[in-house]
Amino acid sequence: MPELAERFELSLPAGWQQQLPESTLTSDVDKMTFVLQLARWNIANKSGGPFAAAVFERETNRLIAVGVNRVVPQHCSLAHAEAMAIALAQQSLHTHDLSTASKHGFELFASGQPCVQCFGMTWWSGLTRLIVGARSEDIEQLTQFCEGPLPDGWQQLLANRTPLPPVEVQMDICREHAREVLISYAQSDGPNYSPGRS
Amino acid sequence: MPELAERFELSLPAGWQQQLPESTLTSDVDKMTFVLQLARWNIANKSGGPFAAAVFERETNRLIAVGVNRVVPQHCSLAHAEAMAIALAQQSLHTHDLSTASKHGFELFASGQPCVQCFGMTWWSGLTRLIVGARSEDIEQLTQFCEGPLPDGWQQLLANRTPLPPVEVQMDICREHAREVLISYAQSDGPNYSPGRS
Repeated sequence: MPELAERFELSLPAGWQQQLPESTLTSDVDKMTFVLQLARWNIANKSGGPFAAAVFERETNRLIAVGVNRVVPQHCSLAHAEAMAIALAQQSLHTHDLSTASKHGFELFASGQPCVQCFGMTWWSGLTRLIVGARSEDIEQLTQFCEGPLPDGWQQLLANRTPLPPVEVQMDICREHAREVLISYAQSDGPNYSPGRS
Repeated sequence: MPELAERFELSLPAGWQQQLPESTLTSDVDKMTFVLQLARWNIANKSGGPFAAAVFERETNRLIAVGVNRVVPQHCSLAHAEAMAIALAQQSLHTHDLSTASKHGFELFASGQPCVQCFGMTWWSGLTRLIVGARSEDIEQLTQFCEGPLPDGWQQLLANRTPLPPVEVQMDICREHAREVLISYAQSDGPNYSPGRS
C-alpha cells in the first residue's frame, strides 16, 4: 500500500500583506475595489486564477481575512478565492461558524459570483452577507471558465433559510470594474483549471 | 490592523492509518463498508462529524486518499469528509484535476449524499464516479443536520455536462448500514455544526 497523504495546507501567495489597505474601508464600493485590486495582483503575480475575496466584520468594517484563487499553484480544486477567505477567517476566529463569532456578523466580498462549490461554502460558513462583483454570465462570456449549475433561486435560498441565519445577497457592486479584471486574465492567457480543460 | 491568517492546514485524526484495509478492496460494497467503518471510528474517536469518504483509482482499485469530517475540531466549515478525501487525493497526485492523473479515472465513495458544498467540490475535482451510501433524507431524518439545497436533477447534471468529463453517480450502496452509522451519531449526542445551531 503506497503512502497516503495525511494533511494539506493552503496559503496566500508571498507579498499578500503589501496588498492590504492602509486604513479601514467603510463602503461596499471601497471594499469591492480593494478585492478587485487583489484579483488583479493575483493575475499579474501569476499566483492563481482571476478571483479574490475578503471577509469583513459588519458594522465595525474590520478586515478579517482575504483570499485569492490558488487552484493551480497549490494543486487543489477547492482553493477558490471564497474558500481561502472563509477558511482563513474561521482559523483567525477559532470557529467553524462565523455566525457565533461577533454580534455584528460577517460579510464576504467576492470579485465574481460564487460557483456552486462556493455557494455551498457560503451556506455552511455562518456568513450573513454576500456581496458580488461580476456575474456568472460575465465570467463565462469573458473567460474560458465553465461556471456550473446553481440551485434555482439561490439568492432567495440564502436570504430565507429557517432555521439557519439568513444571508443577504447584494449583486453587481463594481460590476464593470470586475468585468475588466476578467478581461485582463483572458488577455494574459492564464490557465483554465476546469476539469479536463487544462 | 490586527494580524490576518496567511495559511490553514487540515489533517486526518491521529490513528487513521490503523483504519486502512489490509488488502485491496474490489467491490462497491467492500469499499463502502470500509468507508462506513471509518465514519464509525470518527464518531467513537470524537474527531468530527459522522461522515467519511475515500478516493480510489478506477480499474486498479488503488486507494488514493481517505477523508473524515473535521469541521468542529479544525474550526473549518469546509472540512467535510468529501473535501478531505478530494484535497488529499489531489495533494498526493500533484494536480488540481483528477481527470488528468490516470487513464482509469478516480471514484469517490461518500458515506452520505454530498451536500451542495460537496456537490460543488465533486464538480470541480476531476472525479469521474461518485458512490453514495445514505441519502439526504436519511441524514435529515436520523440526525439534527440540515442538508441545504442542491441543483434540481443534480445526478443528471453530473452525468451529462459537456464539455466537462462526466461523473457517474451510484446511489444507495449499503444504505441501511449507512443509516445505522447516522443513528449511532445521534445516540452519541455529537455536535450539530450547521451555522447558528451549535
